Amino acid sequence: MADPRTVTAALGHRTDARRHHDPSVRGFASDNYAGVHPEVLAAIALANEGHQVAYGEDEYTDHLQRIMHGHFGPLAEAFPVFNGTGSNVTALQALTDRWGAVICAETAHINVDEGGAPERMGGLKLLTVPTPDGKLTPELIDRQAWGWEDEHRAMPQVVSITQNTELGTVYTVDEVRAIVEHAHSKGMKVHLDGARIANAAASLDVPMRAFTNAVGVDVVSYGGTKNGMLFGEAVVVLNPDAVSHMKHLRKLSMQLASKMRFLSVQLEALLAKDLWLRNARHANTMARRLADGVRSLDGVEILYPVQANAVFARLPHEVSRRLQKRFRFYFWDEAAGDVRWMCSFDTTEDDVDAFLQALKEELARRA
Amino acid sequence: MADPRTVTAALGHRTDARRHHDPSVRGFASDNYAGVHPEVLAAIALANEGHQVAYGEDEYTDHLQRIMHGHFGPLAEAFPVFNGTGSNVTALQALTDRWGAVICAETAHINVDEGGAPERMGGLKLLTVPTPDGKLTPELIDRQAWGWEDEHRAMPQVVSITQNTELGTVYTVDEVRAIVEHAHSKGMKVHLDGARIANAAASLDVPMRAFTNAVGVDVVSYGGTKNGMLFGEAVVVLNPDAVSHMKHLRKLSMQLASKMRFLSVQLEALLAKDLWLRNARHANTMARRLADGVRSLDGVEILYPVQANAVFARLPHEVSRRLQKRFRFYFWDEAAGDVRWMCSFDTTEDDVDAFLQALKEELARRA
Amino acid sequence: MADPRTVTAALGHRTDARRHHDPSVRGFASDNYAGVHPEVLAAIALANEGHQVAYGEDEYTDHLQRIMHGHFGPLAEAFPVFNGTGSNVTALQALTDRWGAVICAETAHINVDEGGAPERMGGLKLLTVPTPDGKLTPELIDRQAWGWEDEHRAMPQVVSITQNTELGTVYTVDEVRAIVEHAHSKGMKVHLDGARIANAAASLDVPMRAFTNAVGVDVVSYGGTKNGMLFGEAVVVLNPDAVSHMKHLRKLSMQLASKMRFLSVQLEALLAKDLWLRNARHANTMARRLADGVRSLDGVEILYPVQANAVFARLPHEVSRRLQKRFRFYFWDEAAGDVRWMCSFDTTEDDVDAFLQALKEELARRA
Amino acid sequence: MADPRTVTAALGHRTDARRHHDPSVRGFASDNYAGVHPEVLAAIALANEGHQVAYGEDEYTDHLQRIMHGHFGPLAEAFPVFNGTGSNVTALQALTDRWGAVICAETAHINVDEGGAPERMGGLKLLTVPTPDGKLTPELIDRQAWGWEDEHRAMPQVVSITQNTELGTVYTVDEVRAIVEHAHSKGMKVHLDGARIANAAASLDVPMRAFTNAVGVDVVSYGGTKNGMLFGEAVVVLNPDAVSHMKHLRKLSMQLASKMRFLSVQLEALLAKDLWLRNARHANTMARRLADGVRSLDGVEILYPVQANAVFARLPHEVSRRLQKRFRFYFWDEAAGDVRWMCSFDTTEDDVDAFLQALKEELARRA
Repeated sequence: MADPRTVTAALGHRTDARRHHDPSVRGFASDNYAGVHPEVLAAIALANEGHQVAYGEDEYTDHLQRIMHGHFGPLAEAFPVFNGTGSNVTALQALTDRWGAVICAETAHINVDEGGAPERMGGLKLLTVPTPDGKLTPELIDRQAWGWEDEHRAMPQVVSITQNTELGTVYTVDEVRAIVEHAHSKGMKVHLDGARIANAAASLDVPMRAFTNAVGVDVVSYGGTKNGMLFGEAVVVLNPDAVSHMKHLRKLSMQLASKMRFLSVQLEALLAKDLWLRNARHANTMARRLADGVRSLDGVEILYPVQANAVFARLPHEVSRRLQKRFRFYFWDEAAGDVRWMCSFDTTEDDVDAFLQALKEELARRA
Repeated sequence: MADPRTVTAALGHRTDARRHHDPSVRGFASDNYAGVHPEVLAAIALANEGHQVAYGEDEYTDHLQRIMHGHFGPLAEAFPVFNGTGSNVTALQALTDRWGAVICAETAHINVDEGGAPERMGGLKLLTVPTPDGKLTPELIDRQAWGWEDEHRAMPQVVSITQNTELGTVYTVDEVRAIVEHAHSKGMKVHLDGARIANAAASLDVPMRAFTNAVGVDVVSYGGTKNGMLFGEAVVVLNPDAVSHMKHLRKLSMQLASKMRFLSVQLEALLAKDLWLRNARHANTMARRLADGVRSLDGVEILYPVQANAVFARLPHEVSRRLQKRFRFYFWDEAAGDVRWMCSFDTTEDDVDAFLQALKEELARRA
Repeated sequence: MADPRTVTAALGHRTDARRHHDPSVRGFASDNYAGVHPEVLAAIALANEGHQVAYGEDEYTDHLQRIMHGHFGPLAEAFPVFNGTGSNVTALQALTDRWGAVICAETAHINVDEGGAPERMGGLKLLTVPTPDGKLTPELIDRQAWGWEDEHRAMPQVVSITQNTELGTVYTVDEVRAIVEHAHSKGMKVHLDGARIANAAASLDVPMRAFTNAVGVDVVSYGGTKNGMLFGEAVVVLNPDAVSHMKHLRKLSMQLASKMRFLSVQLEALLAKDLWLRNARHANTMARRLADGVRSLDGVEILYPVQANAVFARLPHEVSRRLQKRFRFYFWDEAAGDVRWMCSFDTTEDDVDAFLQALKEELARRA
Repeated sequence: MADPRTVTAALGHRTDARRHHDPSVRGFASDNYAGVHPEVLAAIALANEGHQVAYGEDEYTDHLQRIMHGHFGPLAEAFPVFNGTGSNVTALQALTDRWGAVICAETAHINVDEGGAPERMGGLKLLTVPTPDGKLTPELIDRQAWGWEDEHRAMPQVVSITQNTELGTVYTVDEVRAIVEHAHSKGMKVHLDGARIANAAASLDVPMRAFTNAVGVDVVSYGGTKNGMLFGEAVVVLNPDAVSHMKHLRKLSMQLASKMRFLSVQLEALLAKDLWLRNARHANTMARRLADGVRSLDGVEILYPVQANAVFARLPHEVSRRLQKRFRFYFWDEAAGDVRWMCSFDTTEDDVDAFLQALKEELARRA
């Protein structure tokens, strides 16, 4: 792995910007708190210099399509965008008519963490379903999958699932297949919010295609930022018949990057070989290490199966509060005492062990 | 100036991505065709490593505010966003009520180059005015500034000007002041689309504040991408009373970057000292050099005053077509034979001279 | 009560239109299946002839304000609109910022019966809460009333309740007061969807003001259509500080009637004296008569308290199906076997008794 | 014709509403100032009593389709809506994709008189063209008909014309045909805003089909209100392949009337025989009488050909102001001194003559 200090050394003296943070500090608040993987930064430098056509007609975006074919089959087409909300709202607009609605879990990021962008920008009604673990099933979908002929009801046209889910759980390949078959049998399309798709593939130990194009998912929001990019996601169309005029939709959704080569080359850095998988596996392993350490402790309960890079736990408020003074992390449901601990590509074993030690100490202080 | 090859050398061996383009090729198509200024890239590397709070609560975004105060006064607050369309649509939503409309030149980027995003995403009606040179005046504004009490008319609440304009012309400080005073006197706010604000300041040889906060402009869309950034702009609020809840608006407009430190540090690299100005001056100088060369040629007419980094010219179609095989550039109005030649921070004197030589040859071939 | 035949006799011979229906047939499907109350039709005729200023500057709309003051206090202002969805979406836009969201019951009409208009036309996110009987409480509201500072969450700015509810239940005055105090204490405004507000007042035997302006409700969607009008509702603003530019919002929401005198005079016909109450009381009485009759029957279960003009019941599917061949009514939840029987201002005692007799027969056929 | 007094006499004593206006006063402000034609009111009474299925499944709406086939051919389908803005915005949404734009005259009602509803509610960008007389031509359309492949430009998908125009001019059949052929040849559809379609047909002395379905217009906004209805328009789909799911679009556009029989029967009253044409011819005749009288006067200039029921004139401000104290009418362009005089189905010869006499007097006072 590239030594980040090499990068700094090579570049640091030649900018008016200054370093304002301590690069040795890491926490468990979010995989968005991490920086850029050095190999991704190197790729950006590689794509720099000279002129390239703007707005996606560059060589890097062209080449990206071939890389995506390797992962998602020959029909796949990637449309790089800026962020996850932009990716989801662009994708869902593409999959719906003006009268369409989207079925999703109550805990879906599109429902709870996008500031109303699906509704306000996309004009989309979300038909939500409570779930025990963030995962939809055909039965849960059917609680909202009805009334297509009824003009008084926004028409369910898309099922949107998140893989892995916002609760750190992972759909099996069979579970996704069952959802897709069910949705398609009712004339609905399937969107997969893959903000952490790499972590899901690493968890299942299958290629990403296994739970996307191989089982009929129509469109994926491909997540790059949490996997080590500076910024950037992509709407990846797997079923070209399911959408139209993606470029127009991306533009009007304010997601068209002028210097797109720098989005595409980051995705290339992740996806050309196995950086995406290395990063995801590492983050998942760190979460498992953390969960394993937590399970031996009294006073902490793990809430969901730890299948990706997140650990959700319930513990006494005062323990969490003291622990937050030593490591950054968030309450998930403050009333209930639930917290979320996220690992990322740059979490180290030492980080996990130090966190576990601190947790032990704070639990002991309480007793 | 940093040698880009240093960057590549330091980083290039450590990525799976490959170089797909010839970094020695440059053209005159767009200032978005250029890459990242090496000092900006160095700044990104500097801000990397370790964890920083996501979504704008990081040290770099915090520090950026102090830098912005130096340029735009102590009340200024910057909200980094992804791109120009996002910046404009976020700013204009902030400046309008649900019933508001925006007066702008017919040639404004928001009217002709944003894919309908202001209307579709912002719900904004644009009240457009034809202009001779892309510049509004109080008189031109008055063609649309009426009917505030009439519910049948979307209410004119904002005047949006572009500095420098889409036609390469630059408002003088007095011209902006007159517009602002006129707009304010009628209860309207003023938005300045500063996609090329640095070029305008360089052209006028005044600080950016001279034609923004010093004359009462309420909100600026600050343009970083064309000025040498990888990506990134900022909504800069100059008049805090003019807007509210910018963070909510940015988020729901799909413009909230998770790893915002990398947006902010790029702006710092430009704005901490004078990189913004060096880059802009250079691009303007190259455009003047190009215009000066063109003026001596028969068969080419320069269409607007060359006040920034753009040269608009009218020449025979077949000359343009042959020239396009040697250098990339765009028709602006194909029917009329109008073309646009853009210079950027990385345009060299040799580039300009080679282009002029080619133009001469193609004009001669025609004769 | 005016004899409808008189109207027909006076007018019927002088139109090219023909009667296509049997005016003696009535059912229990919806209070929207009823026609116009003859006194309302007479009012329309009264307001006809001659010219009146269009778009609400007429004498009838002016006079309507005074009538509304009598019902809702001297600050009330009524904005007549076309229908309930238009009224709700206009009102909710007025009560929210671009970043605002609306808390409502999962069963609210705005959530399940407006075709996504709040989201698609208003850009509004609905934050829904399951309820046992269609009624919110402070505790239920709190499941969604949080996160005002969090830009990732659409901001809860309004609580919307329906009085009487979509399930035929009625909030007591104290229940509404508690909701309003709770909402206001958290900085949220309160909207009351009064599609059947007259039935609620009749049920509670209090003036409409008792559970609206007297307890602090900010805006009411006043329902006229189900109460005997040809068409027409009104957004009634009770708290002028809560909204702004209602006329602009009504227009851009496509709810501005050109010949508004005919909307206003219908409301006058209802509200000048007691027609609104006579109609509502009658419908409620018919529903009670129906419920009383049903309660004595085996095989039918009444699902919610019958407090207004609706009876929700659960009975065997085949009984419902056979009964539907004799009287029109709808399944509410077909899977569960739940049906809805609505009474209206023109339901007669004979209608109810005939329906009960038919129900008895069909239940007996089953046994 | 039914005597309105008969109506009043038959109905007037049986309502709590009171008459607030002088039914003998008429002016020239707008055809929306007129009331309901008595035959239309009679039709409403005829359709009253008993229950009819709500939301358009009634007998009257069903029968309306047959009537529309007579006027617009066997493929026509009418979707009654509340008002003109609702009709236009519903129709234009149906004819566009999310990335679509609408070419129209700068003077089009959708551009200047709908409060931004097309943009705010429909998300539609209007691509406007200045015209000399409110009429588009293929050449004028081409000023905006380009850039279909360019994602930076909202895609021109519809040409919208108004017949007759907002300036009182009328397209000939050949002119509409040329526009439709031109639009279709470029892959665009054609919408005709027929707020005054009856006046246009009367003016051209052809059936309405002659300039709609016979020449390929795709969708018409059929105007009933100005033609004598209480309220109500209809989106009439002439080319079923051009649209989809109109019922869903009407509902989410807040234009679905619950008691739709009363919309449909009004249209039946107009269209079953010739009331639509009688009303339109009368209004046109009155406008011609007015124009003929004005032409003989010094100091007044008629601005556009008087081809329907509107007279646009330029005269001294002080004359207009004094005249407005005697008869209601509006300035069209106050700065220029332009006024609009509208005639309606209930304008009488005496009204016109009295107005001409007053105009003469006020012109004389000035001299």
